[in-house]
Amino acid sequence: MPPGAPRAAVVLSGNELLDGRTRDTNGAFVCDDLSRRGVKVTELLTVADDRGRLDAALRHALGGEPDLLVVGGGLGTTHDDLTAECLADVLGVPLEEDPDALAFVEERVRAVAERRHLDYRETFGLARRQAKLPAGSTAVPPAGVAPGIAARSGRTRIFAYPGVPYEFRQMWLETAAALEQEAFFPDVAVRVVRVFGVGELQVGPILDALPHELVELGINVGGGEVTVRIRHRRDAAALAQADALVAALEAGVPVYSVDGRTVDDLIADELRGGGLTLAVAESCTGGLLGARLTARPGSSDYFVGGVISYADQAKMDLLDVPPGMLAQYGAVSGEVAGAMAEGARGALHSDYALSLTGVAGPDGGTAEKPVGLVYLGCAGPEGTRVRKGSYPGDRDSVRTFAATAALHLLRTALPS
Amino acid sequence: MPPGAPRAAVVLSGNELLDGRTRDTNGAFVCDDLSRRGVKVTELLTVADDRGRLDAALRHALGGEPDLLVVGGGLGTTHDDLTAECLADVLGVPLEEDPDALAFVEERVRAVAERRHLDYRETFGLARRQAKLPAGSTAVPPAGVAPGIAARSGRTRIFAYPGVPYEFRQMWLETAAALEQEAFFPDVAVRVVRVFGVGELQVGPILDALPHELVELGINVGGGEVTVRIRHRRDAAALAQADALVAALEAGVPVYSVDGRTVDDLIADELRGGGLTLAVAESCTGGLLGARLTARPGSSDYFVGGVISYADQAKMDLLDVPPGMLAQYGAVSGEVAGAMAEGARGALHSDYALSLTGVAGPDGGTAEKPVGLVYLGCAGPEGTRVRKGSYPGDRDSVRTFAATAALHLLRTALPS
Repeated sequence: MPPGAPRAAVVLSGNELLDGRTRDTNGAFVCDDLSRRGVKVTELLTVADDRGRLDAALRHALGGEPDLLVVGGGLGTTHDDLTAECLADVLGVPLEEDPDALAFVEERVRAVAERRHLDYRETFGLARRQAKLPAGSTAVPPAGVAPGIAARSGRTRIFAYPGVPYEFRQMWLETAAALEQEAFFPDVAVRVVRVFGVGELQVGPILDALPHELVELGINVGGGEVTVRIRHRRDAAALAQADALVAALEAGVPVYSVDGRTVDDLIADELRGGGLTLAVAESCTGGLLGARLTARPGSSDYFVGGVISYADQAKMDLLDVPPGMLAQYGAVSGEVAGAMAEGARGALHSDYALSLTGVAGPDGGTAEKPVGLVYLGCAGPEGTRVRKGSYPGDRDSVRTFAATAALHLLRTALPS
Repeated sequence: MPPGAPRAAVVLSGNELLDGRTRDTNGAFVCDDLSRRGVKVTELLTVADDRGRLDAALRHALGGEPDLLVVGGGLGTTHDDLTAECLADVLGVPLEEDPDALAFVEERVRAVAERRHLDYRETFGLARRQAKLPAGSTAVPPAGVAPGIAARSGRTRIFAYPGVPYEFRQMWLETAAALEQEAFFPDVAVRVVRVFGVGELQVGPILDALPHELVELGINVGGGEVTVRIRHRRDAAALAQADALVAALEAGVPVYSVDGRTVDDLIADELRGGGLTLAVAESCTGGLLGARLTARPGSSDYFVGGVISYADQAKMDLLDVPPGMLAQYGAVSGEVAGAMAEGARGALHSDYALSLTGVAGPDGGTAEKPVGLVYLGCAGPEGTRVRKGSYPGDRDSVRTFAATAALHLLRTALPS
């Protein structure tokens, strides 16, 4: 982070985050979001539901005198939910029922009781403790039932949210929008350069060879892509360094995006902009590509659907893959990938169709067709392209990587 | 964790874990592994590469007097690698070159230099600092180049490893095997009870009403399910408490699994065991259910495929949903969900088929059909069932929840 950036600490509470039951998503989300906004996260503390340890963690975090302390979890209805008590402990104030918080809880409990056909009074009786906040703090409007807590300790702004991921995300984003209004976040420019087709070892030396002391560089590798993040203050000297780094990357490696847009973003924009439609035919990915395309709100503008042709019979029945082709080349072949894409394009009446057929593993690999081998097809108005890919890692990694590669195949096939 | 279980703290260092570049895997791995071995992890601290904050985090972790402190990262060759210095700081000892550590580094550098065609002397010059350990500590044999550090502080056993995931994992597992030999880990039983159809508010009071001081209870809520984990020492009194808690849950709420198996596990086992096949017809989930079913190795034994009928045309063309039905009831309706399931069952020649059609949001909701409304269908040999569900949260949450609910609909429809 450039010198002088605001600093943040994050404290998450929940036994489930420490005993292998739940993988944290809130910490990763808020660290990433803060980082994009130019804030340096100095520590992320995940603590068991234990009053002594949670108190100690909050004191430890505040001891670093961060500008911001974000707390996640521990605002529910059970005796394990200790965040409000512990914040009151470390702020040296009592817990008090807050009128705003109480109104939020009443309103939300009413909705839940109606939806789940529960007795309102009984449910409200259980939920009422969520209206108790440390004295002097403010209720943050809930995304679920539990309100959040906004407080201050010295220079530190404190915000606490429930640990339910969609509640945490939504409530943090609302807080962040308010902080944005206050100009809390520094004026930092972030350039994100995305590279597909080479590894970190090809990208790193390009960056090392140029001056970069005025910017912060981060390289991330995942799903077959390399992402370079360049952060700098908005002054001419730093801007010039960043420009030179981006230009060198574009000259040296296959950069496909310099404005932060992902391959998913580019495809969505180009299909929508061109009034074009897309279908999928998925074998080894089993629906993963369709799920990824439709994770985006508004994807029905261009995505029409697809066929999950996991069994060979489905490839023949729904995608018109000729039985002889399956017999001759096998389901995992360029021929079948091409036929699947063409079959999906015909069956779904789409402009383009993507197909995937491969060996995701861990079983089913042979010497000739090892685990990780995936054929990709893209059928469109100008014809059909087929690519052979070989992807590393476990089943999940192979499938994710193959879906990304399929999107890149479409990207290169699209007109613009 | 039952009373008296050993306690552990984990400290990870690395800027990349806090700025959105890298998702932690070491912390999740070691917390899960410790938990399975009956150790209670009280905190997981992720700290930036900053000497002051890393010192403070190590002191904070040791302040809780855990039996075990596992440290990950910061043992490399660059100036960002501060773990050895910081451990020396908190132990109050100097750093010293350790003969065993030096021998490990020499041996490993020789192998790397040979493999990568690097100059041995130059590479060793860069790597030599990895042989410096806090005085009085012991070198842990490396999985890569950098040795780990084994030390003690009061009652706490300290083990530090490099942050590279395969090195961290392998070195921890070797340490754990040695601790196992010493009988460091307790003899603990874990019971997992899964509930679908009610919330935490219905489950919590059942547990609170019974004695549970000999067990450790954990409640986790996610994707529309409540999971209760009960851990206890293997003695008759604790076993009786655990049995009573499980029995009370079974009597009071819709428990669907008492042996830890998820709904995904149960369905896979029942379909495979019965020689039955499954297909899907997905609208709002866009392939998510198919992707989830096929995430499991060997799912081709029973999953044949499906249709992603995102557009209405696809529902008609590929699933034979009558145009009049779509016009009369709308795509998001019980009628269409039923027809989609039947259509998929016919088109894919499967024994069972699941369908989903709903409003995932954030747009597209109306007063009559709000965001979160999803109709589920299940067609099978005994006929077709349809359920109407209303799921909270954002698009991702609604889709995930609906997919889980669809699996439960199939579970109740399956013969066993």
